[in-house]
Amino acid sequence: MQSKGNAIVAQSGGPTAVINSSVCGVAQEWLKQGQKGKLFGSLFGIRGVLEDNLVDLGAQRAEIIEGLRYTPGVALGSSRYKLKNEADYERLVEAFRRYDIRYFFYIGGNDSMDTAHKIHSLARKINYEMHVMGIPKTIDNDLPHTDHCPGYGSAAKFVAATVMETGLDLKGLITSTRIVLLETMGRNTGWIAAASALAKRQEDDAPHLIYLPETPFNRSRFVEDVHRVYKEYGYAYVVVSEGLRCEKGEYICADSCTDAFGHVRLGGLGDSLKALLEEEIGLKVRVIIMGTMQRAAAHYASLTDAQEAYLVGAEAVKAALQGRSGFMVTLQREGDGEHYRCSAGSVELSAVANVEKKVPLNWINRNQNYITEDLIHYARPLIAGEVQVPHQGGLPAYVSLENFNVSELRVRLDRKASTAAQS
Amino acid sequence: MQSKGNAIVAQSGGPTAVINSSVCGVAQEWLKQGQKGKLFGSLFGIRGVLEDNLVDLGAQRAEIIEGLRYTPGVALGSSRYKLKNEADYERLVEAFRRYDIRYFFYIGGNDSMDTAHKIHSLARKINYEMHVMGIPKTIDNDLPHTDHCPGYGSAAKFVAATVMETGLDLKGLITSTRIVLLETMGRNTGWIAAASALAKRQEDDAPHLIYLPETPFNRSRFVEDVHRVYKEYGYAYVVVSEGLRCEKGEYICADSCTDAFGHVRLGGLGDSLKALLEEEIGLKVRVIIMGTMQRAAAHYASLTDAQEAYLVGAEAVKAALQGRSGFMVTLQREGDGEHYRCSAGSVELSAVANVEKKVPLNWINRNQNYITEDLIHYARPLIAGEVQVPHQGGLPAYVSLENFNVSELRVRLDRKASTAAQS
Repeated sequence: MQSKGNAIVAQSGGPTAVINSSVCGVAQEWLKQGQKGKLFGSLFGIRGVLEDNLVDLGAQRAEIIEGLRYTPGVALGSSRYKLKNEADYERLVEAFRRYDIRYFFYIGGNDSMDTAHKIHSLARKINYEMHVMGIPKTIDNDLPHTDHCPGYGSAAKFVAATVMETGLDLKGLITSTRIVLLETMGRNTGWIAAASALAKRQEDDAPHLIYLPETPFNRSRFVEDVHRVYKEYGYAYVVVSEGLRCEKGEYICADSCTDAFGHVRLGGLGDSLKALLEEEIGLKVRVIIMGTMQRAAAHYASLTDAQEAYLVGAEAVKAALQGRSGFMVTLQREGDGEHYRCSAGSVELSAVANVEKKVPLNWINRNQNYITEDLIHYARPLIAGEVQVPHQGGLPAYVSLENFNVSELRVRLDRKASTAAQS
Repeated sequence: MQSKGNAIVAQSGGPTAVINSSVCGVAQEWLKQGQKGKLFGSLFGIRGVLEDNLVDLGAQRAEIIEGLRYTPGVALGSSRYKLKNEADYERLVEAFRRYDIRYFFYIGGNDSMDTAHKIHSLARKINYEMHVMGIPKTIDNDLPHTDHCPGYGSAAKFVAATVMETGLDLKGLITSTRIVLLETMGRNTGWIAAASALAKRQEDDAPHLIYLPETPFNRSRFVEDVHRVYKEYGYAYVVVSEGLRCEKGEYICADSCTDAFGHVRLGGLGDSLKALLEEEIGLKVRVIIMGTMQRAAAHYASLTDAQEAYLVGAEAVKAALQGRSGFMVTLQREGDGEHYRCSAGSVELSAVANVEKKVPLNWINRNQNYITEDLIHYARPLIAGEVQVPHQGGLPAYVSLENFNVSELRVRLDRKASTAAQS
């Protein structure tokens, strides 16, 4: 179907190992459908539209676009900008009209789907014909109405491999360090921490204990759990999701971050629990903080995940060209286990915006220190396959867009912002 | 050449991604040379000999031995046990005689080469014919008289890929977090931190700053450096080696770990520097602590490294069967760049024991905040190639020795130690 005007694709929120694969899906599908209209990339999310920083993706070499399939980070740049006021909306509309934008593809998580929904509603309200489609991404896996989110499978795979490998390291070496504490991302949901269970093959394998933010965290039960595992195996491997909260709802970290004199102590959750264990059990604890490695380790991305990230991008283009607007593409699981297959569906943006999908409580064990087979069953197919990344000089040959210098633009935007703040 | 009796191989000190590849090299070469004698694995380093915990590696299936080529951790278990007194030596000799051990292969770093040297000297002294060969391994790359150490190439490759990937993540996303601080292993030498420079392709790529323990660390210069980079690019990626010390020789972490009231604060070097930067520059800093991932990430091991780890194991067997004793196998670089090749040499254990090779000062830039091209040139060939690890269920199919339950033995040893301590 022939497009009526031009299109914009933008990336929003935190990167994933495969978020660029969705951009690739959008760009290649746009081309495949033989569109005469241009496809622009909006730089740093919706800010690119507001600040008039668009790049013509049609002017990029095909190899660069193809390279987005395996390149981590956000090729177009990203931000967490939220539309604020009437002035923002006016600038958006003005830019859409000026560039004759009739298709808008927004890749992001909960907040971003809210923004996409607002843009869809705005266009409706002013009777401007535009097709807005949301493309899901988040390593947190917390978007509703989709079986899972592109980005999660790769984070799950990397975390599980890491727990398997550092678990072997801990098991084999007798030293004073007897406990490893791995802190994962996931402030409100424990999907990533839960996936570490995929690493376990034998009973004494890591991880031994997993704590999710879905259930309240109890310090003394935690100490008992770790001590029991240690007595059984001679070591203990513990995975904690960064957003653990006590029964009163306070973050465990914040809770213990202030010492008796009111000084905020250094370190986050991992360090806080390390101190607790070392004090209570008297054993040396090693903390691993993977940070952004979880969403950036494209050298070990899940092939299934990368392909699905591509699919949701391509499907968004198809749906928009068919005249749909106001939807997010979803992933629908068909079959299971070895017969796992996934197809694209859709859901209204309004049903997704700002809703968070947590790990079901019946997928957490009774002691609230591990997950059940249901979660293994759910997550296993999502980590299947390895993306083959081209290498150069012993390292991944990732691509970056041409004629767009991220650092230069960042500095320019920063200067503008600081000038605006001063005036 | 036919062996006169039996042999022992043991692993000592911290694991590397390829230390098991050396065991594989020893075992397969022993078999290849058609030895009638048995090859035992000593469990948990030299402790296995002292505590009578040996496994017959000849009884393991060939696939398991082959799988050691790509399996991280220490398949035989490891410890940091140092020979203490006459009683230890007597037990060693007794065990050697009882099992008719005539060949002893010890895989380890500086301390382990010291132990190997002591065993060699002991055998000479009591006129017991035994051939002791040291097999180098350490991610720290600090053994002298060898061009580099097996284990280093894989750690360097993984750290460089991580900096490349998390660098892209930082560069593309505009949020309040503007600085990433990655803490690497390396208490006395900066080889691992230095290798992160391999990640840089363009000037604004991560890493921007690298601090090694070879030169004294100056806080105010550090803050200035980071601030300057931030002003230039809008973000800054900093790599620090865990062992940074101030001019007085005190560890930076220890130095700032005690607050005004004498309380030891939580967190290590990374957290200490994060607090410093946030206070002085007022920007949010994210700290990444990879911990044992650096020495365990076999899913991304360097093929060159894995092959060289195998080579030093196989060469140790050849040398011992030729009657040599008291040497460590070394790696000798031949050719360079694309023409890099490496062969095995040897050096007397006495020349290696307890000597540490640091990053040459002329490989560190004048401002002591980055490394020179010499280091890139040195390290690049060591990270070449990727080990192809067999996968199962989306994760590496690592092997473990059969008929040897690590956890069970650990718990048994712990109980014995605690009983001994009580009596």
